[in-house]
Amino acid sequence: MSRWIAVDWGTSTLRATLMQGEVVQDRREAGTGMNSLTQEMFEPTLLGLIDDWLAGPTPVLACGMVGARQGWAEARYAAVPCAPMGTGLTQVKTSDPRLDVRIVPGLKQLKPHADVMRGEETQIAGILATLPDFDGVACLPGTHTKWVHLSAGEVVSFRTVMTGELFATITGQTVLRHSLDGDGWDEGPFIDAVSDALSRPETLAARLFELRAADLLHGQTATMGRSVLSGLLIGAELAATRPWWLGRDVVITGSPRTTQAYDAALKSQGVAPRLLPADEMTLKGLATAKDLP
Amino acid sequence: MSRWIAVDWGTSTLRATLMQGEVVQDRREAGTGMNSLTQEMFEPTLLGLIDDWLAGPTPVLACGMVGARQGWAEARYAAVPCAPMGTGLTQVKTSDPRLDVRIVPGLKQLKPHADVMRGEETQIAGILATLPDFDGVACLPGTHTKWVHLSAGEVVSFRTVMTGELFATITGQTVLRHSLDGDGWDEGPFIDAVSDALSRPETLAARLFELRAADLLHGQTATMGRSVLSGLLIGAELAATRPWWLGRDVVITGSPRTTQAYDAALKSQGVAPRLLPADEMTLKGLATAKDLP
Repeated sequence: MSRWIAVDWGTSTLRATLMQGEVVQDRREAGTGMNSLTQEMFEPTLLGLIDDWLAGPTPVLACGMVGARQGWAEARYAAVPCAPMGTGLTQVKTSDPRLDVRIVPGLKQLKPHADVMRGEETQIAGILATLPDFDGVACLPGTHTKWVHLSAGEVVSFRTVMTGELFATITGQTVLRHSLDGDGWDEGPFIDAVSDALSRPETLAARLFELRAADLLHGQTATMGRSVLSGLLIGAELAATRPWWLGRDVVITGSPRTTQAYDAALKSQGVAPRLLPADEMTLKGLATAKDLP
Repeated sequence: MSRWIAVDWGTSTLRATLMQGEVVQDRREAGTGMNSLTQEMFEPTLLGLIDDWLAGPTPVLACGMVGARQGWAEARYAAVPCAPMGTGLTQVKTSDPRLDVRIVPGLKQLKPHADVMRGEETQIAGILATLPDFDGVACLPGTHTKWVHLSAGEVVSFRTVMTGELFATITGQTVLRHSLDGDGWDEGPFIDAVSDALSRPETLAARLFELRAADLLHGQTATMGRSVLSGLLIGAELAATRPWWLGRDVVITGSPRTTQAYDAALKSQGVAPRLLPADEMTLKGLATAKDLP
């Protein structure tokens, strides 16, 4: 079994994993995401993290925003419907001859609405490697949550919802930050808010400022406020994506924390999702890509 | 007619107006809002702006976040239903004997949901001074838009929607900022987005990322993107506040730009609002307060 390196290089984080076939040998992580780098900084940044892993020429398979226009090298978007790595890999020119870097293609959708993804297609390849006959919907929660319809080994269509970024921005940048600090989470109020947003999605915009007023007038705790905000936003997302999950077979692939929240929200609506960890799906997906032309 | 000073001291801006009775003598403005000041900085900051207006002891009537807990002196909240300046003014202790500073009370609502305002109560007093028999709804668009039910000279109830702050945060802090820069506005796509959000409010969360994808895949302009975002958020606000404006007499009191947007949105729904400028209503409201105990 050959030695190779899996790289998940997103907007804010670089994660590298040394692999022997499909077995993990070592893992490293750095805060040098795509956002903090100019084009010529990618190679030295990667070498700074993994130089001692490179005995000789080594395949490096990379996914994520590293393939964006502002990344190391622009990788194509494959147009859905297609297999998750439906077009070829993009070879990156490097100065160090030990590096054989290839970036997996993203996915784009032109109809019924414009949409794009970079990074999640690799997790989807991992999901399909794990469940080859899966016919249903993958929910990949994160900064930009993806809802992905999978059938016959292909991505049929997908939809992005900015729930994670809205939560981070509202708790970090608006007047609500004074009422929502900390990182507590309380499932009861969360589920109530999910249900409320699903049954009356038109009130979302007005419910937000109540979190501030409830703190000022009633001393509502930050944990309660965060749980309600999270529930309102995830509930609004479930309202927007109802045709994607209602009566479908659903897989959730995310970090442990976001997976827990989406799992609880979907369970409260009678859906019993399967859970597949994001890290593991990324590695499985990159292992699939390794053998592509 | 006596000489006095009207002060509108908000989160980010200090506006002072020298008045002779109800006639404007001079106006000044500074970026020294409540957010940038500690408690002991308020008096020197005000003196720095208006020292030469103070021939002798002069009444200064102030409204806005200057009366918040983090402001110069905490002013009460009057509980609705009540007249917009339903409790007394808060006298501020000053070192300079020429300053006779009083802050108008804010408004709070405990039921059916918690809500607060500071500053808008003064504009509402101005609206009621202009239209004493008004029975209907005042819409005060801004960072935190207020919808206010007025009847028999009193504020019956109100609701805050964070539309302005969400627009600023989404265009300034999220990934959409790359696709929405500039300050263009196009009424056609704006009205279409208002209508779309009103008829399908549950899709808001999913519509946002389309603005980014439409830029990446179809080269959608920033002006188009901003107009659609503004329409989606104001449409969502109108969906949340439908009982406030449907079949009601509506007054809009805001800055020229936000007033134009809300006026166009409401007109597209068959409402014909009256427009009363915010600056003028603030001065009229403070003139009313001057004679309160």
